[in-house]
Amino acid sequence: SHLTCSIRYHQRSSLVVCRSKFDLDDVIEAQQFDRDTLGQIFEVAREMEKIEKNKEVDILKGYLMATLFYEPSTRTRLSFESAMKRLGGEVLTTENAREFSSAAKGETLEDSIRTVEGYSDIIVMRHFESGAARRAASVASIPVINAGDGPGQHPTQALLDVYTIEREIGKLDGIKLGLVGDLANGRTVRSLAYLIAKYSDVKIYFVAPEVVKMKDDIKEYLSSVGVEWEESTDLLEVASKCDVVYQTRIQRERFGERKDLYEQARGKYIVDRNVLGVLPKDAIVMHPLPRLDEITVDVDDDPRAAYFRQAKNGLFIRMAILKLLLLGR
Amino acid sequence: SHLTCSIRYHQRSSLVVCRSKFDLDDVIEAQQFDRDTLGQIFEVAREMEKIEKNKEVDILKGYLMATLFYEPSTRTRLSFESAMKRLGGEVLTTENAREFSSAAKGETLEDSIRTVEGYSDIIVMRHFESGAARRAASVASIPVINAGDGPGQHPTQALLDVYTIEREIGKLDGIKLGLVGDLANGRTVRSLAYLIAKYSDVKIYFVAPEVVKMKDDIKEYLSSVGVEWEESTDLLEVASKCDVVYQTRIQRERFGERKDLYEQARGKYIVDRNVLGVLPKDAIVMHPLPRLDEITVDVDDDPRAAYFRQAKNGLFIRMAILKLLLLGR
Amino acid sequence: SHLTCSIRYHQRSSLVVCRSKFDLDDVIEAQQFDRDTLGQIFEVAREMEKIEKNKEVDILKGYLMATLFYEPSTRTRLSFESAMKRLGGEVLTTENAREFSSAAKGETLEDSIRTVEGYSDIIVMRHFESGAARRAASVASIPVINAGDGPGQHPTQALLDVYTIEREIGKLDGIKLGLVGDLANGRTVRSLAYLIAKYSDVKIYFVAPEVVKMKDDIKEYLSSVGVEWEESTDLLEVASKCDVVYQTRIQRERFGERKDLYEQARGKYIVDRNVLGVLPKDAIVMHPLPRLDEITVDVDDDPRAAYFRQAKNGLFIRMAILKLLLLGR
Repeated sequence: SHLTCSIRYHQRSSLVVCRSKFDLDDVIEAQQFDRDTLGQIFEVAREMEKIEKNKEVDILKGYLMATLFYEPSTRTRLSFESAMKRLGGEVLTTENAREFSSAAKGETLEDSIRTVEGYSDIIVMRHFESGAARRAASVASIPVINAGDGPGQHPTQALLDVYTIEREIGKLDGIKLGLVGDLANGRTVRSLAYLIAKYSDVKIYFVAPEVVKMKDDIKEYLSSVGVEWEESTDLLEVASKCDVVYQTRIQRERFGERKDLYEQARGKYIVDRNVLGVLPKDAIVMHPLPRLDEITVDVDDDPRAAYFRQAKNGLFIRMAILKLLLLGR
Repeated sequence: SHLTCSIRYHQRSSLVVCRSKFDLDDVIEAQQFDRDTLGQIFEVAREMEKIEKNKEVDILKGYLMATLFYEPSTRTRLSFESAMKRLGGEVLTTENAREFSSAAKGETLEDSIRTVEGYSDIIVMRHFESGAARRAASVASIPVINAGDGPGQHPTQALLDVYTIEREIGKLDGIKLGLVGDLANGRTVRSLAYLIAKYSDVKIYFVAPEVVKMKDDIKEYLSSVGVEWEESTDLLEVASKCDVVYQTRIQRERFGERKDLYEQARGKYIVDRNVLGVLPKDAIVMHPLPRLDEITVDVDDDPRAAYFRQAKNGLFIRMAILKLLLLGR
Repeated sequence: SHLTCSIRYHQRSSLVVCRSKFDLDDVIEAQQFDRDTLGQIFEVAREMEKIEKNKEVDILKGYLMATLFYEPSTRTRLSFESAMKRLGGEVLTTENAREFSSAAKGETLEDSIRTVEGYSDIIVMRHFESGAARRAASVASIPVINAGDGPGQHPTQALLDVYTIEREIGKLDGIKLGLVGDLANGRTVRSLAYLIAKYSDVKIYFVAPEVVKMKDDIKEYLSSVGVEWEESTDLLEVASKCDVVYQTRIQRERFGERKDLYEQARGKYIVDRNVLGVLPKDAIVMHPLPRLDEITVDVDDDPRAAYFRQAKNGLFIRMAILKLLLLGR
């Protein structure tokens, strides 16, 4: 495939960097991906599934990834670190980067990034502030991956969600998707709505307790790009029509003192054996995890329970992203 | 050696797993080992002593171990991680897995394990609740090693203790063992008593302050399997008759407000140069570490002070366990 | 080059260790280096710059470094861990070694070191107590590197500072150095003064707010070894005469309740575009980082702003030290 080259200025030197056609420099937000790019990432992810445990994998040998986590997220961190190590690369870990001078001594994020880029080849960053990943990418001369920045984005989660739908259902165009639970606060469902809107003939059902309904910005966006959507209070009816029931956790931390509202919202829509009873044979249940009791454990053994496979797909997507950002296509 | 095969069900797929005769799936508690298994583990541990620092060791290359520690224990964690890396394997570390959604967001241990098993090939787990390791092993499709579960078990510590006795004294049958210190709360001495009882003609002396005497369940168990035991208040007399004096730390945290009882118990039986004076020439002093002043530092230079060699044996035992669980025999 | 051999006693065994002429066992304090040793280290550091990202580097393959940090310092830890991994070695990390029994259960540092040396080949230690590194080295049978011990030493920082001056200016003899900012509390500038004094014809200017002036011990030392020094309150004048302006952060934590004194000291000497205006064309600005506003961000783009290159040099110096301590010269 043909190469694209660019000049990068790095401290005193400038270097010409050439990559093959996959021209992603950083992974910052779900909106940056078009259908073609998604297709390329998913293709590499499929290759990754095959090589996962091959002892001879040295694809990223000699490369160092820094996991710069300004707030803890063990699940996401482990997934990225596993991905890097499965490819033969190495990892520098900072589980609590708030102590990384920044907060403690007043260093700016920009300065921290300029230091860390001297020690590593790629930065995976989690931050508590929306927009932090973009700021990091703007100063870094190495690729930056956003592993969640506050209420902002968590683009690799959105990628693995779409990958899982394609992997399990076999298509993305024409998909019928039920988004259930905390649609107001869930970063996940918002990003997923953005990404899935890139496919044609998509239908989305929103099923949420009144206090955590999907916000207008997403609804307007979907309408503006021609995606059909509908709100419903009948989970069983929605489940009977969907390819994917995507359940989410009601986030207690968003309710503050109103424990009563939380308890009310929490018990409202549960995916249980009744839902399985009406769910089409080839449909699936997804969940970004962790779950509490919004999916009952007796659902786990049903082959349509896809949430642990979905978590596993996070590994393949992250392997693909790391390979593409470090080696190009 | 001949193979044993089994069918494992993992999410949507089932796989036939064949291993050679060593058929340990998980390491959960000291009681699960018989003499034959112990002999096999010790044989591999001996091989491990030879290869420790060989640069060409790629025995576990491509394998990933997850250290899932729900309470910190740097010593045990480092020992396992060193073992894995000495064999060419790689490690995913979670020093503070309590934040791993579980406690923080209410995820069950079972769900956490199902996620982590997607990222790794073997799980080493430390937990604050007795029985947690068994629960983890029951859902995991990859091997689980118990690195301590609350007041429960710490089986690799028991293995390294028995290995050290055989390595230093040259035998296990006919051994004379003095267990000293906090016998009521010490997980270590309880597990050691269970394991050593598998050998014949064993004699155990208990030397403990009144408030932390060995409990009846162990005494009854030893009697039931024909192990001779005796309680004594005379450390010097016991030391003069033993192959092994196994000293333990009085655990302050068990005394709560009763600091007076703690101080009283703590000073009662000290291994010092007086004890060395009566200890047989080929006997040894052991201690699971860390120690305070229950062994005086002037004992350290005596060749019979085996406690740092004992700690080092933990490395070889853990290397052996990792190799056996991941590759079979 | 010819070998020097020594006998090391390690637990029950003794071993003859032979190394080539580079005879550093540990790195404990800046004063231990003479000009020859510095020259050797810098020569290896230059080699390290070339091999940094070569995928085939297995120079330290099979070696394990333990980073034993009794207080967090993410920047220093990442720099050492990157260095080890760039050379093909492996790392055991303890970000919060205070929990490593020592503090929590009362184990001595000496006992902790004797345990950790069984798991690793070299120890990089950060401690909150002055003198801790020397104590660790005195019991360890493997090399110990001091990565900062309280108000004491941080020798690899001093090494990378001198290396940066040579690398950027092209000489050390005859250098003119302006030390600016918190000269009373800055471990960095004190160590740098010690090291640079080994070169001839050096001139040092101290520019510090009254409350954090350079202490008499360093001034007396410099005078005793024939280094010219001078105090000044005019940063612009000093900058116009220097090869290196070494700016440091005013350490708020040293002022306790006296926030007024802190604010006063903090704003006094700022490196900004005015300073750049008078700074010679081939001079540089250095800073140990993190910085607050004692260097304005509009200085960053000037080619004379050397502080991020300086941080990067820390990687090469640490690679050199690790190679020299583990493999000899």
